Amino acid sequence: MERIEVKRITDVKLKKPILVEGLPGIGHVGKLVAEHMIDELGAKKIVEVYSSHFPPQVIVLADGSVRMVRSELYAVNSGKQDLLVLVGDHQSATNEGHYELTSAYLELAKENGVQRIYTLGGYGLGQLVEKPAVLGAVNNLALVEEMKRYGVAFKENEPGGGIVGASGLLLGLGGLMGIDGICLMGETSGYLVDPKSAQAVLTVLSKALNIDINMQALEDRAKDMEKIVARLREMEQTGMHEVASEEDLRYIR
Amino acid sequence: MERIEVKRITDVKLKKPILVEGLPGIGHVGKLVAEHMIDELGAKKIVEVYSSHFPPQVIVLADGSVRMVRSELYAVNSGKQDLLVLVGDHQSATNEGHYELTSAYLELAKENGVQRIYTLGGYGLGQLVEKPAVLGAVNNLALVEEMKRYGVAFKENEPGGGIVGASGLLLGLGGLMGIDGICLMGETSGYLVDPKSAQAVLTVLSKALNIDINMQALEDRAKDMEKIVARLREMEQTGMHEVASEEDLRYIR
Amino acid sequence: MERIEVKRITDVKLKKPILVEGLPGIGHVGKLVAEHMIDELGAKKIVEVYSSHFPPQVIVLADGSVRMVRSELYAVNSGKQDLLVLVGDHQSATNEGHYELTSAYLELAKENGVQRIYTLGGYGLGQLVEKPAVLGAVNNLALVEEMKRYGVAFKENEPGGGIVGASGLLLGLGGLMGIDGICLMGETSGYLVDPKSAQAVLTVLSKALNIDINMQALEDRAKDMEKIVARLREMEQTGMHEVASEEDLRYIR
Amino acid sequence: MERIEVKRITDVKLKKPILVEGLPGIGHVGKLVAEHMIDELGAKKIVEVYSSHFPPQVIVLADGSVRMVRSELYAVNSGKQDLLVLVGDHQSATNEGHYELTSAYLELAKENGVQRIYTLGGYGLGQLVEKPAVLGAVNNLALVEEMKRYGVAFKENEPGGGIVGASGLLLGLGGLMGIDGICLMGETSGYLVDPKSAQAVLTVLSKALNIDINMQALEDRAKDMEKIVARLREMEQTGMHEVASEEDLRYIR
Repeated sequence: MERIEVKRITDVKLKKPILVEGLPGIGHVGKLVAEHMIDELGAKKIVEVYSSHFPPQVIVLADGSVRMVRSELYAVNSGKQDLLVLVGDHQSATNEGHYELTSAYLELAKENGVQRIYTLGGYGLGQLVEKPAVLGAVNNLALVEEMKRYGVAFKENEPGGGIVGASGLLLGLGGLMGIDGICLMGETSGYLVDPKSAQAVLTVLSKALNIDINMQALEDRAKDMEKIVARLREMEQTGMHEVASEEDLRYIR
Repeated sequence: MERIEVKRITDVKLKKPILVEGLPGIGHVGKLVAEHMIDELGAKKIVEVYSSHFPPQVIVLADGSVRMVRSELYAVNSGKQDLLVLVGDHQSATNEGHYELTSAYLELAKENGVQRIYTLGGYGLGQLVEKPAVLGAVNNLALVEEMKRYGVAFKENEPGGGIVGASGLLLGLGGLMGIDGICLMGETSGYLVDPKSAQAVLTVLSKALNIDINMQALEDRAKDMEKIVARLREMEQTGMHEVASEEDLRYIR
Repeated sequence: MERIEVKRITDVKLKKPILVEGLPGIGHVGKLVAEHMIDELGAKKIVEVYSSHFPPQVIVLADGSVRMVRSELYAVNSGKQDLLVLVGDHQSATNEGHYELTSAYLELAKENGVQRIYTLGGYGLGQLVEKPAVLGAVNNLALVEEMKRYGVAFKENEPGGGIVGASGLLLGLGGLMGIDGICLMGETSGYLVDPKSAQAVLTVLSKALNIDINMQALEDRAKDMEKIVARLREMEQTGMHEVASEEDLRYIR
Repeated sequence: MERIEVKRITDVKLKKPILVEGLPGIGHVGKLVAEHMIDELGAKKIVEVYSSHFPPQVIVLADGSVRMVRSELYAVNSGKQDLLVLVGDHQSATNEGHYELTSAYLELAKENGVQRIYTLGGYGLGQLVEKPAVLGAVNNLALVEEMKRYGVAFKENEPGGGIVGASGLLLGLGGLMGIDGICLMGETSGYLVDPKSAQAVLTVLSKALNIDINMQALEDRAKDMEKIVARLREMEQTGMHEVASEEDLRYIR
């Protein structure tokens, strides 16, 4: 096995597609948004990426079958704006793998004529957030004003620790290749999978892409999550830490 | 030294052998089963695999001699069903080594005409198990029904964390090569070497392979282990943690 | 992307330049000095170094734009003594990367005719230091006496743990290439960014380079830092650990 | 810089030399013995080995000069038995580096016609040892009886965790090349640099090599160490943990 193997599933002709990345990260905000888009927009898988930089394991699916850890690229051939959506099971498990995998993703983007990338993630605040803002970072200063129009907030020196993983490197390495890149980060506690933060990010992103996307599914998940958080808070107050149901925990993990 | 070195010990002609993998893992369940099979079925070592991905150490044998950490492939040339059995001292110590070693094992499997692989492991529950079930995962959905007939349980989304190491990757990478793969996981506490769980796995496996295997040795070890567990529990109740004999500890480690 | 990519920004003809390295490290002493020199001496960026050995992230700037983690080489074309100044965001994140990056830095030094290197760092004492001394280490014993004349202290077997990272390897690998190297280490607590220690190092260095450098900016930062330390001490005495303002913390981080 | 660089210092003709390895390890037992032999036998340095697998730092010597981390091979051209002695600052910092460096050491051994290797180390017991025994392990069973004659103890399944690092791999990889290898491990607490354990190992080794070596220096260090241990014990009893002098600590580190 090569360190990175790109498996082409099908060919789709796209017109100036925009790449949206939602790999796993803080609060799984980016992943929730990107997978929601794939479902709602009827996206078609065009590429699978396998790599020995991923954690050495297989994913077990609900039906008992397994498959290799991988990233996947989907194509949306809609009327208004063609899209590529990048999702996956894991980020790289090695330092140089982050660079090599991002380069592979950018190679695929270039092949498909991508000139703009949105990378999606969460911005951990360490506490529950009532109304999550969406922070932005760009690889081309000219994009700041445009993003502000869609409701993106820019705060000086935030995130202070930089943007780690594919969401950051797609902007950094993409910029070196002349591809515009914007990272949208939904504020989140950082402790829980956060569909509410994902909603906030998707609201901004759909304006930016000028695409209508039904949000019901994300809203339902957000409501479920709020109930769980309420129950957790109650339990905390009554000292009943131990009684979270298995079902609750599946959401949290 | 190359990163992986395959040393051929002897040549054995096998007819459509099935590969059984029992490398170290949770509760050493897979290792116990595979080593028991090698002993009981008079298997013959055909290959040794050395690698700089293994931990940088030598194994000290009972007689004071040492040897390199390695994996070994054994052949069983029985009447009914030819087998290859893969055992070893350690899993890979590096991330990419897991992928490279598994590829090397699959290369050997392919050479020998393997069309089906059973990988064996433990499934850690975090508590002692009275009657360990055997969970399954497959790389080809068509195998689920067959496995259920042998007593394998399939639980939705378990194991949730995926299957880590060679037991997982042999299914994942094997599947990409068109080789059927089944992972059998015996429930176990995860804290102790568990011959009882190994018995449960072997019971299922011998049905699946349609081979009779004497289980006395595993049964004896399971009884020894039960005595030790009983003693540990007693000690726990009386607060005598310190008095486990050296002999006891050898079983636990 | 290659493991190390050297991007030339501009060409500057230098006469026997001396290389000054100030990459991140203990108390950010070296970084403070080197960045101060770049500002005060009107240095010109000539090279950027990118590498998959750096942490896999982008730096977010104050204006909301991002850029890849990198090292930078600046040229000072002054009247008295030409200089090259090496600064950067991070040291290598991998073991072999330290060696490979240092080799790349030395290659650039050699190209520019460098015959002497000063590497700058902090020497952590584990407690606040009133009057930080500047410790030295050299890759050529003949340099000890010269350095003592500039006020550098040499203490037997200090630093006992060796000098880690680029500051050490530039001396070690540089020495193998016949380039003289001196490491100047300002005593510092090791807990805080330390502009006072940086002042001490710069005082020695400007004597060694026979260059006048205005220190006002470093002095101002040192005074700010002293106020913060005084406040932290007060808080410690009154048990008010929690009230450090965000502004204070920015200095400490 | 290559991953491993072998620098030849001088050429010495040796007659069937035996290789003695004393790289850093538990209680620095092997290192103490090997460095003592180099001093007492007037050994001559013939090779330096540099590697990006070593920790990325330089060693600071007592005179303020630095040098790269390295291993060194010394030659003893005595009347009775020619020797090669391998010492160094550090073991490999990476997993595969252990294998690559050991291969490089064996390459040097082979060049010089080595047919037997003694690797030296400590065997940590977790408590202070009054009369340290010397445990053995061999890569050729025929050597056990010979070693017993020199006073080496062989205990079943000890060391249970195997022999880690160059001391182990020189036996393992050396054995694959047909070179006899013996590991001598002096019992030691594992907490302190242990010259008494080193004396025990050297006593056995000098019998095995049939060489007389003056042990006064090791004996002196052992006596110093005993005084320090006595003082530490006293301090422990009186609760005065804080007053160990700097000088004491230098021994312990």
